[in-house]
Amino acid sequence: MKPVTLKQIAETLDISITTVSKALKDYPDVSKKTKKLVKELAETLNYKPNVFAVNLRTKESKTIGLIIPEVVHHFFSNVIKGIIAQAEKKGYLVIILQSNESYELEKKQIDLLFSKRVDGILISLANGTGDFKHLNDLMAQDTPLVMFDKIAKIVNCSKVIINDRKAAYTATKHLIDSGCKRIAHFRGPLLPQNSIDRFLGYKQALTDNGFAYDPSLVYICDCSDQSFDEGKNSAKQLLEDHDDVDGIFINTDLVAIGALTEFQKQGISVPEDIAIVGFSNWFMSSVISPTLSTIDQPGFKMGKTAFKLLYKEIKSRKENLPIKFKTVELETKLIERESTRRFHQKV
Amino acid sequence: MKPVTLKQIAETLDISITTVSKALKDYPDVSKKTKKLVKELAETLNYKPNVFAVNLRTKESKTIGLIIPEVVHHFFSNVIKGIIAQAEKKGYLVIILQSNESYELEKKQIDLLFSKRVDGILISLANGTGDFKHLNDLMAQDTPLVMFDKIAKIVNCSKVIINDRKAAYTATKHLIDSGCKRIAHFRGPLLPQNSIDRFLGYKQALTDNGFAYDPSLVYICDCSDQSFDEGKNSAKQLLEDHDDVDGIFINTDLVAIGALTEFQKQGISVPEDIAIVGFSNWFMSSVISPTLSTIDQPGFKMGKTAFKLLYKEIKSRKENLPIKFKTVELETKLIERESTRRFHQKV
Repeated sequence: MKPVTLKQIAETLDISITTVSKALKDYPDVSKKTKKLVKELAETLNYKPNVFAVNLRTKESKTIGLIIPEVVHHFFSNVIKGIIAQAEKKGYLVIILQSNESYELEKKQIDLLFSKRVDGILISLANGTGDFKHLNDLMAQDTPLVMFDKIAKIVNCSKVIINDRKAAYTATKHLIDSGCKRIAHFRGPLLPQNSIDRFLGYKQALTDNGFAYDPSLVYICDCSDQSFDEGKNSAKQLLEDHDDVDGIFINTDLVAIGALTEFQKQGISVPEDIAIVGFSNWFMSSVISPTLSTIDQPGFKMGKTAFKLLYKEIKSRKENLPIKFKTVELETKLIERESTRRFHQKV
Repeated sequence: MKPVTLKQIAETLDISITTVSKALKDYPDVSKKTKKLVKELAETLNYKPNVFAVNLRTKESKTIGLIIPEVVHHFFSNVIKGIIAQAEKKGYLVIILQSNESYELEKKQIDLLFSKRVDGILISLANGTGDFKHLNDLMAQDTPLVMFDKIAKIVNCSKVIINDRKAAYTATKHLIDSGCKRIAHFRGPLLPQNSIDRFLGYKQALTDNGFAYDPSLVYICDCSDQSFDEGKNSAKQLLEDHDDVDGIFINTDLVAIGALTEFQKQGISVPEDIAIVGFSNWFMSSVISPTLSTIDQPGFKMGKTAFKLLYKEIKSRKENLPIKFKTVELETKLIERESTRRFHQKV
């Protein structure tokens, strides 16, 4: 007979795997009644938590899973490269899955990687992910998880991030310092934390510098496969809505390059009429005309760091050491290029 | 006791795994003496070829390995995306390794994937790979292999390719039709078949159209991470060496964009002074100024097709059907953009 799993106990009682795991470990946030139920059932089914964990964990597969929203993407390609480089050093293989920004797909992929018994999982969340049960369940079953770039603050695991809010503040402040008087923002989708934080940084920079925040100047762009076209469309819409905007902080370079293309088509000069700052420092931003000012985001380093955190957790578990979650914040920097070289005015 | 492997027999006799496999299968290209030696040793060691193969093969891992030279690369990112999409449909996971264009690393990665018992391997060769024993050995041990893009003609397996020679011919002919009188070529490294074929297509187009082939007009570029800089350097060198060149066919878009940047810096107008055709149709080629004429190479489709061929072979082996290797050639097309819009002259 196969050993019973946490999942079976959870399904039998119609509660989450996380709750079962917490109940067995006597966490204070689970009711006494639930704890009693879980423990009785575990005993009846002869559930052996330690043996189970050891069974799973000592049988190392030396593979880890990586779930990212999009492979054909300058930033994520660099992250993948960093992860593979570091994993190889430690003798690990990397299984890569692409969530296509879909929550449903992401959930399935977590299950799939768990069933393959990978030693750990690295994830950058899909834009569509607003619920995190699949991730909490995974961790409740003793699989190490590290989030990077697109993370959820409320999930309790190690993370590698940049300070999106601070970086967006810097980008917007740079437009103000370049003499822009009315600054729009092309933001990412509503859910992901990084698009929220970049929006908040933009807003903060405005109000800190005596600018009124005007929600009609904020355009939402889907930063997926279609981002280039989204940039074009938002630029077109902006020109119809407002004739006084002279600066835009844009959520990601590819959207910014779409906007640049539309402005060029309509005879709007960048930076003379409208200055632009992007985000992420895609390679092409340095070769288009005008070259694009942007925020440099260290993809390769982010990948390396994420693997290092995961590896540390895998090792700690193996040696039965306490697990300490850590959030590493990597530095970003403003790259000044032609798209903001306007009045050469520094405040 | 572990069952003896082909590799052990090969090492004991100091011959290749391929030879051992062929000897056991009575291939005509192995000497009688070697066959006798191999068969005797196999018997002594109690080697059971069928049991071994069945053991390995029925224990499906439902994972495949993918070895590519470079992840941060528009074309390869698209290939990866195509492979993952198709693999997912069939319930397979993809382990991705990056060879960094190194033969040594590629060899190690083949061994690693074999030891992980992947169900099959997809590979695009490193520029440094000129010997194929590691691939022949892999296939001799009943692991399906499919090559794509950068292949070796002499390795007997399924392949997905484009007709590099024909595409390069089309690109060069387009420069001739645009009125160019002296056409240079920035070629890739010496080893990979695709860089050889693109060079041959260039040469053929010249001689077919009454142009003398001049080897001093051919510059070798390393098409790796550094390709953008290589393009700049080769453009600089070309301007020093020749003042009469008015067209260049360049092995890959990123190198072409490097060259464009250098020409712009030196006040050389593209296409007025020098017309340029690239290869691969990177996204950024459509947004730089001038936009770059190029050959469109179907990366996503190549990835899908490569997985389909591999899947078919995995299935055939499982069902003990005969394996038939197939080479699929995908269509390419010329994309005419500003970098060749010169005299609007068609012959």
